[in-house]
Amino acid sequence: MKTLHEVIKNIRPIDHSRRNTIQAKLDDLTKPQGSLGRLEELAMRYCLITGKDKPVLRNKIIFTCAGDHGVTKEGVSAFPAAVTPQMVYNFLRGGAGVNVLARQAGARVIAVDMGVDHDFEPAEGLEIRKIGRGTGNIAAGPAMTREQAEASIMAGVGLVEKYRDGLDIIGTGDMGIGNTTPSSAIVSVITGTDPELVTGRGTGIDDSSLKSKVATIKKAIAVNRPDKSDALDVLAKVGGFEIGGIAGVVLGAALHRIPVVVDGFISTAGALIAAELCPAVKEYLVAAHQSVEIGHRKMLERLEQRPLLDLSLRLGEGTGAALGISLVESGLRILAEMATFSSAGVSEKNTEQTVL
Amino acid sequence: MKTLHEVIKNIRPIDHSRRNTIQAKLDDLTKPQGSLGRLEELAMRYCLITGKDKPVLRNKIIFTCAGDHGVTKEGVSAFPAAVTPQMVYNFLRGGAGVNVLARQAGARVIAVDMGVDHDFEPAEGLEIRKIGRGTGNIAAGPAMTREQAEASIMAGVGLVEKYRDGLDIIGTGDMGIGNTTPSSAIVSVITGTDPELVTGRGTGIDDSSLKSKVATIKKAIAVNRPDKSDALDVLAKVGGFEIGGIAGVVLGAALHRIPVVVDGFISTAGALIAAELCPAVKEYLVAAHQSVEIGHRKMLERLEQRPLLDLSLRLGEGTGAALGISLVESGLRILAEMATFSSAGVSEKNTEQTVL
Repeated sequence: MKTLHEVIKNIRPIDHSRRNTIQAKLDDLTKPQGSLGRLEELAMRYCLITGKDKPVLRNKIIFTCAGDHGVTKEGVSAFPAAVTPQMVYNFLRGGAGVNVLARQAGARVIAVDMGVDHDFEPAEGLEIRKIGRGTGNIAAGPAMTREQAEASIMAGVGLVEKYRDGLDIIGTGDMGIGNTTPSSAIVSVITGTDPELVTGRGTGIDDSSLKSKVATIKKAIAVNRPDKSDALDVLAKVGGFEIGGIAGVVLGAALHRIPVVVDGFISTAGALIAAELCPAVKEYLVAAHQSVEIGHRKMLERLEQRPLLDLSLRLGEGTGAALGISLVESGLRILAEMATFSSAGVSEKNTEQTVL
Repeated sequence: MKTLHEVIKNIRPIDHSRRNTIQAKLDDLTKPQGSLGRLEELAMRYCLITGKDKPVLRNKIIFTCAGDHGVTKEGVSAFPAAVTPQMVYNFLRGGAGVNVLARQAGARVIAVDMGVDHDFEPAEGLEIRKIGRGTGNIAAGPAMTREQAEASIMAGVGLVEKYRDGLDIIGTGDMGIGNTTPSSAIVSVITGTDPELVTGRGTGIDDSSLKSKVATIKKAIAVNRPDKSDALDVLAKVGGFEIGGIAGVVLGAALHRIPVVVDGFISTAGALIAAELCPAVKEYLVAAHQSVEIGHRKMLERLEQRPLLDLSLRLGEGTGAALGISLVESGLRILAEMATFSSAGVSEKNTEQTVL
């Protein structure tokens, strides 16, 4: 795909015509109907998205998109901006939270330099798709140009296109000191909610820093006047390069009918941009977890998603997505591996007692 | 251990003196403090219970305890009683839900005949600890004698003692057509809650059957008059053999300082009996999930447990426990495998920007 417009035009709604067939298979397994709850829902959704019958998750990738943020100058984070590139190196060495949980889930982590203020050498597991060396300070002007916003999204689409052969599931993740600030700004603008109600403590700021963070977001919105009906404008004015990258990963996943497990607050900001550009992507999303960040709930409502987990996570990186991928796999294993009533010689509901 | 009294006497409260040491290790990992939420809590709890520093989960067992229930005569279940032994065979062949999810979690399933109305031949993965061929109909008299109640619990303790060498974690599970009825009766009696408020649809009964199930439970309590201050009396009068077995597994786990992940409604009824007998066991429990069964919440409150997952599960067998074991493993992997700030060269909170 060459342009964002083409990508959006080619994303199709999910074909629901196979729903009854898949439901019948789930109901033939040796369990009361529906008794595996959301695991069954996940199996259903995966089959509908991919068009497959008894899918097996073999190839799983978490794209952890990294970027720096000019707004860190305003003191919005508890950590110094240098942590962004330091953590990218940590991803490459396999020592970060997402690496640990991805290994457990059998997923690869691809770290993506979407706009880190540091020059990386090429490395195994690293994709360099740099749009710029950190965004502009949104409290003083736009994060990026409209062209850069589109380029960041297309970079995310490009990632999916590069890896999509045999790819069974995608997780999203983020790294970027300061990036809860643009994420709060995005959800505030798109849902028309006061910044106070969607701004949290990120990596762990105190009360006075939280007040100043809210003021910074208000200023960013006042200075930039993003147009809520134009998601590309919102991304350009108050977003981030890694948020654009994640939006692109989500669009690319939907384009190629690959289910995408969305991590927490920053990833969901990316998914929100994607869904505002193309509402059909909502059906391709699995919301991994409910983040501690207070703005996350508003995003999920807008995306019509019910998160799978609620474990008080607020790390990002794709840690929640790794856990979510395992649950999708649980649902698919149930569908593929459980015995049926007839194969196991188990009596069905409301039947007479049968002799063993 | 020879008697239940000795088991209870030898269960010790957890030693919390290592809490600060473990917390310091968690806080030295490359993430904002506490940002992995409940995964960090699980790691902490596991270390406190076992006294280990960087534990690895290698040997995991789910004990799926099965028993039949005389009360099925009252039409309390949507499935015929013959399904109990049929499902035990399904466990042995690896085709049930718990087998699938246990395989994913790397856990073994041991099926336990605690009181199925069927004679099993010895088989790999089956423990025959039969107390009786199904309980008495609790709507007409006691489920079992007091001696049988104690024997069922001691059988559960014995399971842990047989397998405990090198065992890192235990999950509980149940199979028994009709067993939501005694579980509702147990929570009703112990917490002094009206049966209406703690009785659900089990495998999927309709409205009129639900009404009759509530009436059956009321009758069982009226006929048997269980003494709420005597958990053994409650188990004997309105319980089940597999519920006693699960109570014993929980007590045995606490006795040998092995964390025990408790499945849904029926398993939690077993844990409730165990905790009424010996309140110290509460600290050894991990509540895997919030069941759809409405009485489950009351049980968890009484046990002071917050469940890890809420996935609308209502299958039992240990399916939720398998998922819960994976989350405990996630917490332990975080502790054992993540890089520290110093080892990864990552700047800590509120430090000056450092050069990479």
